Amino acid sequence: MKLAHATWPDVEALPRDVVVLIPTGSLEQHGPHLPLFTDSLLVTAVAEAVEARIPGQVLLTPTLWLGASGHHLAFAGTLSASFPGYQSNLEDVVESLRRHGFTKFFVVNGHGGNTEPNGVALRTLKERHPELVIGHAGYFEFAADTAARVMEGPLKHIRHACEAEASLALHVFPELVRTDKLRDDGLIPEPSAKGMIFTFDEMTEQGSLGYATLATAEKGRQIFEAAVDGVTAQIEALASGIVLKGLPPS
Amino acid sequence: MKLAHATWPDVEALPRDVVVLIPTGSLEQHGPHLPLFTDSLLVTAVAEAVEARIPGQVLLTPTLWLGASGHHLAFAGTLSASFPGYQSNLEDVVESLRRHGFTKFFVVNGHGGNTEPNGVALRTLKERHPELVIGHAGYFEFAADTAARVMEGPLKHIRHACEAEASLALHVFPELVRTDKLRDDGLIPEPSAKGMIFTFDEMTEQGSLGYATLATAEKGRQIFEAAVDGVTAQIEALASGIVLKGLPPS
Amino acid sequence: MKLAHATWPDVEALPRDVVVLIPTGSLEQHGPHLPLFTDSLLVTAVAEAVEARIPGQVLLTPTLWLGASGHHLAFAGTLSASFPGYQSNLEDVVESLRRHGFTKFFVVNGHGGNTEPNGVALRTLKERHPELVIGHAGYFEFAADTAARVMEGPLKHIRHACEAEASLALHVFPELVRTDKLRDDGLIPEPSAKGMIFTFDEMTEQGSLGYATLATAEKGRQIFEAAVDGVTAQIEALASGIVLKGLPPS
Amino acid sequence: MKLAHATWPDVEALPRDVVVLIPTGSLEQHGPHLPLFTDSLLVTAVAEAVEARIPGQVLLTPTLWLGASGHHLAFAGTLSASFPGYQSNLEDVVESLRRHGFTKFFVVNGHGGNTEPNGVALRTLKERHPELVIGHAGYFEFAADTAARVMEGPLKHIRHACEAEASLALHVFPELVRTDKLRDDGLIPEPSAKGMIFTFDEMTEQGSLGYATLATAEKGRQIFEAAVDGVTAQIEALASGIVLKGLPPS
Amino acid sequence: MKLAHATWPDVEALPRDVVVLIPTGSLEQHGPHLPLFTDSLLVTAVAEAVEARIPGQVLLTPTLWLGASGHHLAFAGTLSASFPGYQSNLEDVVESLRRHGFTKFFVVNGHGGNTEPNGVALRTLKERHPELVIGHAGYFEFAADTAARVMEGPLKHIRHACEAEASLALHVFPELVRTDKLRDDGLIPEPSAKGMIFTFDEMTEQGSLGYATLATAEKGRQIFEAAVDGVTAQIEALASGIVLKGLPPS
Amino acid sequence: MKLAHATWPDVEALPRDVVVLIPTGSLEQHGPHLPLFTDSLLVTAVAEAVEARIPGQVLLTPTLWLGASGHHLAFAGTLSASFPGYQSNLEDVVESLRRHGFTKFFVVNGHGGNTEPNGVALRTLKERHPELVIGHAGYFEFAADTAARVMEGPLKHIRHACEAEASLALHVFPELVRTDKLRDDGLIPEPSAKGMIFTFDEMTEQGSLGYATLATAEKGRQIFEAAVDGVTAQIEALASGIVLKGLPPS
Repeated sequence: MKLAHATWPDVEALPRDVVVLIPTGSLEQHGPHLPLFTDSLLVTAVAEAVEARIPGQVLLTPTLWLGASGHHLAFAGTLSASFPGYQSNLEDVVESLRRHGFTKFFVVNGHGGNTEPNGVALRTLKERHPELVIGHAGYFEFAADTAARVMEGPLKHIRHACEAEASLALHVFPELVRTDKLRDDGLIPEPSAKGMIFTFDEMTEQGSLGYATLATAEKGRQIFEAAVDGVTAQIEALASGIVLKGLPPS
Repeated sequence: MKLAHATWPDVEALPRDVVVLIPTGSLEQHGPHLPLFTDSLLVTAVAEAVEARIPGQVLLTPTLWLGASGHHLAFAGTLSASFPGYQSNLEDVVESLRRHGFTKFFVVNGHGGNTEPNGVALRTLKERHPELVIGHAGYFEFAADTAARVMEGPLKHIRHACEAEASLALHVFPELVRTDKLRDDGLIPEPSAKGMIFTFDEMTEQGSLGYATLATAEKGRQIFEAAVDGVTAQIEALASGIVLKGLPPS
Repeated sequence: MKLAHATWPDVEALPRDVVVLIPTGSLEQHGPHLPLFTDSLLVTAVAEAVEARIPGQVLLTPTLWLGASGHHLAFAGTLSASFPGYQSNLEDVVESLRRHGFTKFFVVNGHGGNTEPNGVALRTLKERHPELVIGHAGYFEFAADTAARVMEGPLKHIRHACEAEASLALHVFPELVRTDKLRDDGLIPEPSAKGMIFTFDEMTEQGSLGYATLATAEKGRQIFEAAVDGVTAQIEALASGIVLKGLPPS
Repeated sequence: MKLAHATWPDVEALPRDVVVLIPTGSLEQHGPHLPLFTDSLLVTAVAEAVEARIPGQVLLTPTLWLGASGHHLAFAGTLSASFPGYQSNLEDVVESLRRHGFTKFFVVNGHGGNTEPNGVALRTLKERHPELVIGHAGYFEFAADTAARVMEGPLKHIRHACEAEASLALHVFPELVRTDKLRDDGLIPEPSAKGMIFTFDEMTEQGSLGYATLATAEKGRQIFEAAVDGVTAQIEALASGIVLKGLPPS
Repeated sequence: MKLAHATWPDVEALPRDVVVLIPTGSLEQHGPHLPLFTDSLLVTAVAEAVEARIPGQVLLTPTLWLGASGHHLAFAGTLSASFPGYQSNLEDVVESLRRHGFTKFFVVNGHGGNTEPNGVALRTLKERHPELVIGHAGYFEFAADTAARVMEGPLKHIRHACEAEASLALHVFPELVRTDKLRDDGLIPEPSAKGMIFTFDEMTEQGSLGYATLATAEKGRQIFEAAVDGVTAQIEALASGIVLKGLPPS
Repeated sequence: MKLAHATWPDVEALPRDVVVLIPTGSLEQHGPHLPLFTDSLLVTAVAEAVEARIPGQVLLTPTLWLGASGHHLAFAGTLSASFPGYQSNLEDVVESLRRHGFTKFFVVNGHGGNTEPNGVALRTLKERHPELVIGHAGYFEFAADTAARVMEGPLKHIRHACEAEASLALHVFPELVRTDKLRDDGLIPEPSAKGMIFTFDEMTEQGSLGYATLATAEKGRQIFEAAVDGVTAQIEALASGIVLKGLPPS
């Protein structure tokens, strides 16, 4: 069920073991070829496809579209929430629905910059309410294998405004892609270093990272389906109940 | 221009005296007849109509849909932001665009409960950055006269899920209105008292306040047009520049 | 009863259905003719007159005099609380007295800039403690009709350091009014715009807004009495109990 | 100069090396014999006497009367600010006047519970603005020797609602003292322990600590004068400029 | 250089391009066999070994030992910082040293629960001060391959109080390991689910996760050396300067 | 018992009336002769000596070493926590152990700058949990008389990096004292003023205050023993139970 279009008696009538699905996105620069709302549009499309498949097991909220995008602020148009403000929103959505009796929550994320604050916010909630069942993951985590398979360029991970993300855009909202502006972009640190925190104006020339010129709608379709399959399976697992069992013997 | 669909070079190319238009909504119970997203859907429709009329003077952001709705939390499905979290989002949107060089902001609000925190957040910004030009008003304030004229019930002000709001819903998203559930509802304090802070479960039986059974799409159309006219005029005033002039002689 | 002058056993002995009356003021510039403490002095005088009339129904706290006055900070001497700090104080006063068993609160405000943070703070309290009965209004709201009637200048609303407020000052603390400095002041936006957030140095030359040269103590007396009458009636309504009754039929 | 009664041009005309004097008080239980506002009334009286002596060297603000009184909340009528809210107010007063160009601040405190948060708030300000000259002390610290001399009971330190404080009350606001309710009260820890944090309901039977039955107005007069002398000397030192000089040789 | 043992003139004399190394740990339950301080002891040992190897390139701070351990609070003795408090500390360390002129920072983490708040805190700092060079990683990330190679049990990742961590403990502080209490422990979710947020009392019987009975000091030595090698290389990369270079052609 | 070296079953097995002992220190400049970690090293040594004497009555936590040292930030190497961050840590340690059932807490402080925020944090906890038994004091308060007796220089109070503190350092960690850099330092305000908030770069030439050249290890030993005796007695008082008894008759 889509929460936005429901009335309160509709929600009142729901069984309380449906899984609340909360998409998180961003409004941030995606190079000269993709719109600022790319992350939000993609994660919303994935979440709506999941809801369309298993509507009775999901309560889908609107997308929290104002993401943690401080590393993109050097590019015009990017909006960024402060971390406390961002986290507060996610906590408030869960707290509100917890008050209405729901106990299972899954956050599907569409923007890498949200991963850490999602973790902090959700762990805060879990500490406050240990009885809640909470999970979160990027939709792109479920599609990593498929993306690595279909991508032709030398970069095999889903990155920002890259071959994979541009392909998803061509599949989901082709009318918003500036195909004449698709470009390869991005810099790589030498020597290789772990866990560096770079801003995108340090790491790219025009804001994207990877081989967007290789993007096709068909690649996007395959990645998209893999993401929808993965999130659907995750929701079904939460809905049916995850059980913790013993380790295999050593 | 719609910020969501623009690329960063599109925004970079904009003149910096366009007016940033920020809609604020809610996801909260609207009685058994209107969807939870009513406020967000209506204010978005108004803002998009304004943008469609004068696209060159406006930079329209997506709607901040998670509103301050604590007074509706007794009804299932309602989501409410904390006041600090809500205000933080609005401040962050303005701060981000200020960083990109924009100086004129207008917040069009679709939910009464946001009025006060909008004021606090925007005054905070004005104190921090006195050079900004900032305004805010509910879309319904621009339509108050029209609404009073077209409403047939004894209540002549736009209230929650009432004759006027249900009419707007029938005009803007008729497919989401449960016409079989339209109902009159609401209680009135005796003796009359100023400034009382009631929750909606204290003030109503099923969450709406007024004579929704009298709603029609045509009334909604007239109220909607008045709102669009009013917000458009406001944006044009900000875009062209508001000048402060002396009082008339006493 | 005045809380300040009571001992704790006096408060312990009170019935818990008396109405706690909390005045909120400011210390901010009021033009060259009125003292910085004008708002606090006036709202305190109104509140004390109410307490003197119906002492058994009221528990009057001292005035929260440090208001939200950021829009006046360009003028020397103005003090302004941050919004969170201001709101925290109001919340703490209510929380403290709630702990002592009181459940009915009315905030009488003497400074326009406090209206929104008062609303945010009191709604926060109501959400936390739905059983509380809470109201708030400016004393000037109760005197609006009288003020409009007695004011001779072209401006008929009570504004900052204007004909009405200067009249009140001449009635309540004439010794602090610089009658030789009374002056008309203030600018008006063209085109007219709704909800603009101006600072007082943008809107005035010397900090006041209206026709203070027309002020008289007799006008002040009438406005003052109207305010005291209005607040008294409000307190009596809360003390006797406000009942919510059904709407008239459509 | 009293800030409350000044106009903004009065403040504008002040030399910026006057010392801003900020009294901090409380509204908290003071046993069955003293009013809740005792601390605020006493510190205000001291501060006003200082201002009356050296008006040209002082800019006196109104008293921040809502103190940190959580340890008295078990007694009816006590109001307590949260520490962050309390500190925020003090910071805001200094920040506002700093903006107007003042650089010397002295906080005269009338309530022991404010000492630590005053220190934290003022050190925060000093770290943010190292150029400020800031000091703070309880008025009672300046009167400690006199109090020890005039007190007849076995307790020689100024404590809560004790012989000394009740004497001050009899000197400053005799009409508010319930002389028929004066009582000795208070418990002492065994074994003696340093730095214990007790609440007043743990430490007293009725909220006072010491030998209030021995209070007289004459003792109060002497203690009061010592406090005024001490604060005056402090303000004069700040006004004339404190110089740091080398240690004596070892 | 160890910051703790230096004097201020020692630090003043340092070149400002040394890398500040900040270890983050925890004090939390580690099963019946390892001490509560395990994470802090291990990360400190790694960091000190790095400092001993390249003392001229490192400024090593003491370990921030109070970690984010809310998911372990069901076990006695665990201490947990709130996320904002934890993050505040890390920010304050960096801000203090930034004030002294240092610009390169690397956080070596010893506790998985700190990873996300470290990321949030460091990204906050990077947004505020884009000129800083900041990185962070768990020491265990540098030892993952070695650990997978030396571990004999079916679990090949470093987990909580597991074969690898117990081995490290036997290498670094054997006197604190309760070898008689070593035990295998831990539950696995079925169906497998991504990104679930479990507490350790949900996931384990006695607080550890993996095959601790297989731990040996020699395995620990190898894992430890790999971690020290990895962190050392990282520091050297930061010290010499990381350069961003173009992607290879597609 | 030392919490750091215990396992969770060790803590689980403890009687809940042991006294939790929490040392608080700093990392801040101590002149050219003492290391930055002086306060933390000294307070840890005192606390460990206390634990060694009465291990069954104490649960000793690691030292909260990141202190409130803003007044030393002008000297290189000093780290300072913000007050809210510092207080949050102390609150979190107590809250965590309270959750595990402990009710008696004593904070032994090694840095004057922590005294006020310790007070604020602990009073916050006491207000939230009135059933807790909480105390705090500087270790130096217990050694004041001994220090005054053994100090030969004209300054008889324990100050920053002075004769007493340098003596303690020579007793506890002589290998870290730069005996060739011992120096007398410090300025004194004229006229004498109460409660002034100075930074150490205002008050000293090189960061110390007093006659460090007179320091000896033997003086340090005597002061140290007095501190350990005093804290031990305090813990024993809390462990056995402090009783409140009536005042002596007047």
